Amino acid sequence: MKRVFVNPISWKKGRVRIIDQTKLPVELKYEDCLHVSDVWGAIKKLKVRGAPLIVIAGALGFLLGMQKLKARDSQKLLKEAKRLHKYLASSRPTAVNLSWALNLMQGIVEAHIHCPKEKILLLLKREVERIIQEDIQMCFQMSEYGSRLIRQRDSLLTVCNAGGLATSGYGTALGVFYRAKEEGKIFKVYACETRPLLQGARLTTWELKHNHIDVTLICDNMAADLMRRGKINAIFVGADRIAANGDFANKIGTYSLAVLAQYHQIPFYCVAPFSTFDLSLASGRQIPIEERDAREVTTLYFKKPIAPEGVKVFNPAFDVTPNTLTTAIITEKGIISRPFKENIKKIYGQFIKKN
Amino acid sequence: MKRVFVNPISWKKGRVRIIDQTKLPVELKYEDCLHVSDVWGAIKKLKVRGAPLIVIAGALGFLLGMQKLKARDSQKLLKEAKRLHKYLASSRPTAVNLSWALNLMQGIVEAHIHCPKEKILLLLKREVERIIQEDIQMCFQMSEYGSRLIRQRDSLLTVCNAGGLATSGYGTALGVFYRAKEEGKIFKVYACETRPLLQGARLTTWELKHNHIDVTLICDNMAADLMRRGKINAIFVGADRIAANGDFANKIGTYSLAVLAQYHQIPFYCVAPFSTFDLSLASGRQIPIEERDAREVTTLYFKKPIAPEGVKVFNPAFDVTPNTLTTAIITEKGIISRPFKENIKKIYGQFIKKN
Repeated sequence: MKRVFVNPISWKKGRVRIIDQTKLPVELKYEDCLHVSDVWGAIKKLKVRGAPLIVIAGALGFLLGMQKLKARDSQKLLKEAKRLHKYLASSRPTAVNLSWALNLMQGIVEAHIHCPKEKILLLLKREVERIIQEDIQMCFQMSEYGSRLIRQRDSLLTVCNAGGLATSGYGTALGVFYRAKEEGKIFKVYACETRPLLQGARLTTWELKHNHIDVTLICDNMAADLMRRGKINAIFVGADRIAANGDFANKIGTYSLAVLAQYHQIPFYCVAPFSTFDLSLASGRQIPIEERDAREVTTLYFKKPIAPEGVKVFNPAFDVTPNTLTTAIITEKGIISRPFKENIKKIYGQFIKKN
Repeated sequence: MKRVFVNPISWKKGRVRIIDQTKLPVELKYEDCLHVSDVWGAIKKLKVRGAPLIVIAGALGFLLGMQKLKARDSQKLLKEAKRLHKYLASSRPTAVNLSWALNLMQGIVEAHIHCPKEKILLLLKREVERIIQEDIQMCFQMSEYGSRLIRQRDSLLTVCNAGGLATSGYGTALGVFYRAKEEGKIFKVYACETRPLLQGARLTTWELKHNHIDVTLICDNMAADLMRRGKINAIFVGADRIAANGDFANKIGTYSLAVLAQYHQIPFYCVAPFSTFDLSLASGRQIPIEERDAREVTTLYFKKPIAPEGVKVFNPAFDVTPNTLTTAIITEKGIISRPFKENIKKIYGQFIKKN
C-alpha cells in the first residue's frame, strides 16, 4: 500500500502545524500557526506552497479564524467567514483551488448559520479532513495513471516541487515517480533547480533522495542540453491553474521546458487534480500571473547549502548550438549567414589570404 | 569615438593586473598576479573569464613566466616556453583562442631563441600589446556590423557576459549594444542571470548600467515567457569556440535560448572574432565541453547582493503553457489528451454529474 511519507501540514490541538519549507533542505522545522495572519504569512512567504497544499492551508486557516472568533452571534459569524475568505484568498492570486476551498468552507458556515458555533466548527473540521483525504486519494489516482507512461530505464525531468511537500504528502508529478518506484520500475529523475526560489534544488531533490529515487540536480538553463543529448524520455510537471482549453499556469520555466520538449519530440505531461481546472477561463491568456519581489532575483537569501548533501549534479559549463538555430554570426570581418559551412570557408579564406 | 570603458587586465610594472570579477558587482577590486600560478588560478577560478580576455590573460601569463625565468640558456628558455604553454592552456579546456595565443607566444621564443633574453622579452611584450590592440579593433568592427541589426525601440536579450569585462574593454555581444547606443539608438536589454555562476546578474547588468543602457535582469527560465509575450526582438550572444559548420559552444543555456528563439521566430545572433573559429572541427559534436564542480550548483557562494543596487528585475512567479505544447494532462479521473477543449469538457461533465 502506498504511503504518505511527509506531513507538510496538520491540525494539532487547535493550531495549524506546518513544515517551514523555506528552511529545507538544511533543516526540517515544524512551526505552529496560532493566528490566521500566521497562516496568511506562511502562504505569502512560501513556507507553505504548492497549489494542493495551499488549498489545505487555506481551509485550516479558515477553521483557525472561526475558532478564534469570540462572538456566537450568527451575523458576526457570517461576517467573519466572508472576511476570512477574502483575506486568505489574497495570499496567492494565481492558485485557483484556494478560492475553491474557501468557498466550500464559507458555504458550510452559511448553510449552518443558525446552529451552535461548536456544531459549525465540527462541520468545518470534518470538511478539512475530507479535503485532505480527498487530496491523498486524488494523488494516488493520478499517480496510477501517470505511472503507466513511465517505462523501464526512463530518464525523467521535472521542475519546481510537485511532490509530497506541495500536497498532503504524496504529490502530483512526484507522486507519479513514487508510484512507478513502488511498481518496481527503475528510472532516474533530473530536477530543475527552479530559480528564483529554488524549490527544485531545495525541496524536490530532498524529497526524492528521502524516497530513494535516483535524482540529479541541474540548473534550469541546462535542461535543453540534456534533451539534445537524448537524456530525457519524458517530462512531468504540476499545474496551478488550467483553463478550459488545457492551457495551464505553473511555475515560471514550465513553458520554456514545454517548447524545448516539443522541439526535441519529448512527451510533456501535466499532472494535476480536477480542482486545478478553471473552466471560466477560455484560455491561458486570462490566467492572472503573480509578479513577485525583485529581491528574490537580486539576492540569494538561502543559507548554504541550497541542496541536500551529496546530491548528484550535472554541471556542464557550456553547451553547443547547432547552425540550424543561428540566424547569423557577426565577426570582425562581416556578418556570416547561411549556408554557414560554405560562407565560413569563403570568408575564412579571404581572411587567411589577407594576413 | 568609441571608448574602452573598463580595463579588466593590464601589464603593470612587470606584473599582471586584473579585476577580480568574482567580487563584482559588490566590489571593483584589482589584483596583481606575481606568479604564473596566480594567472592560472585567476583563469581557473573565473576571476578572469570570457574567451577574448582569457587569450590576453594567457599571453600575459606567458610573458610573466618568461620574465621570471632566471636562466639565459636557450635550451632552458625553450623548455620553459613549452612548459608555460602546456600549463596555461590547461586552465580552461573549452576556449580555443587560449591555445592560439600561446602558440603565437611560443613561436616568438622559438624564432628568436638565439637572441638575448631581454630582446625576446621585448618581442613578447610587443606581441601581447598587438593582441590587445587587435582585440579592441575586432570588437569595434564587430560592433559596427552588429549594430546594423538593431532597430529603434528594440528589446534585446543576452546571456552570460560577452562585454568589456570579457574582452580588453569593449565587448563582443555587449559591444554591439554600446555601438548602437553611440549611434543614438534607443533600445532595452534583458540580461539572463546565467546560472550557476551568475555572470549575467553580476557582470552584464553592472556593465550595462555603468554605460547607461536600460537593462532588466531575469532568471534564465524566464526568457521563454518574455519571448511569448513578444518582448524580445533579437538575441545577441558570444561564443567560446565555433566549428567549421557554424555550430558553436558558448555558456550553458545558450542552446536553450537558440531553440526558444527559433520557436518564437526571433533572430538569434552570435558575435565572435575569427580567432574563435576552429576549422579542425567539422561540427559542434567535436567541441570538448568542460564539466565543472558540483558545488557551483549546490551552494551559492556569492556575497549578497548578486546584482547591482537598483537594477530593474522582471520576476513573474508563473508562466502559461499553451495546450499545443502539452502531450497529456493526467488527472485523478484519467489521462486527458487532444483535442483538449473537447476532452476536458467531456471528462469534466462526467465528473460533475457523478458528484
